[in-house]
Amino acid sequence: MSSPMKTGPLEAGEASKNETSKHGLNTNRGRAISILDLILRVFAAIGTLGSSVAMGTTNQTLPFSFQSFQFRAEYNDLPMFMFFVIANSIVCGYLVLSLPLSIFHIIRSEAKISRVIFIIFDTVMLSLLACGASAAASIVYLAHKGNANANWLPICQQFSNFCQRISGSLIGSFFSVIILILIITTSAVSLSQI
Amino acid sequence: MSSPMKTGPLEAGEASKNETSKHGLNTNRGRAISILDLILRVFAAIGTLGSSVAMGTTNQTLPFSFQSFQFRAEYNDLPMFMFFVIANSIVCGYLVLSLPLSIFHIIRSEAKISRVIFIIFDTVMLSLLACGASAAASIVYLAHKGNANANWLPICQQFSNFCQRISGSLIGSFFSVIILILIITTSAVSLSQI
Repeated sequence: MSSPMKTGPLEAGEASKNETSKHGLNTNRGRAISILDLILRVFAAIGTLGSSVAMGTTNQTLPFSFQSFQFRAEYNDLPMFMFFVIANSIVCGYLVLSLPLSIFHIIRSEAKISRVIFIIFDTVMLSLLACGASAAASIVYLAHKGNANANWLPICQQFSNFCQRISGSLIGSFFSVIILILIITTSAVSLSQI
Repeated sequence: MSSPMKTGPLEAGEASKNETSKHGLNTNRGRAISILDLILRVFAAIGTLGSSVAMGTTNQTLPFSFQSFQFRAEYNDLPMFMFFVIANSIVCGYLVLSLPLSIFHIIRSEAKISRVIFIIFDTVMLSLLACGASAAASIVYLAHKGNANANWLPICQQFSNFCQRISGSLIGSFFSVIILILIITTSAVSLSQI
């Protein structure tokens, strides 16, 4: 946070051509990294939002039914799918809330403490999202393939539409995991540049 | 990497009392964070090693058997448990290999680029470990509780010893996930101090 540059946004580009601060800071490069960070956050938010909506709105009722059985599959039949929806919603909410601070980083590219806080929260959110995506993926795998050793039969033959939707909803979540890794990388790189 | 301190390990503590470098670096604090990083890495490596060994060596054979059925439970019956063992082994290997660089950071507490590389690799390993632990945890949950909607029956009534071991092996893995988050935090904090 030492020696903040007092230049306005219009003058900053010119100033950085002529001088780099004594900390070796290249303002232009720092700003470019901050803009990249903002774009990645928007993409990750869209990915998690899409995943949680796709999973949360999925249900399939089979056209026949017996007396006591209800042939209807929904996301809240399995706790791992509920966890998936909750984890994706939390991460999406966090990413949307982090956008203003990310925009602040574009303007003030020398902020150090807020970047460290970003790295910590991003890491926690990455763990949460990876756990949710992986828990749901292992159930999706079981639903497709079943397991002969545990005598768990695949359910995708009956609920094919349901299975397609839940398989598809994993894509956005794992995509966001990769983007969150990139976001943490950009934060670390910009911290090292300051 | 600018202005490396040329003091030996004995003189360094004294030097940092009298002067901080022009980057606001407090060498003593940087060294303390690096030592904390090393200790955390050792703990995380032990946690992942314990998890993969506990999961990998588990098997239970029931004392009775029928003609075509083999009542034997092993970790490689389920692909998620194999993934768990592989993920834990990879992370454990990475953590052991990262120890020399972590020791190097204690001696040269101003190294920037290697810390950024550490953050990137730690983040990838954190994702891998969280995915493995979560995939195994969701199967352990199913083994304990089963799921009535998908008609998957719990198997822990038969394989109680097997279930206890695999449940226990999750602890080390989730413990290591938390420690990896702390390691990334320490790396970010020490990057901001330089």
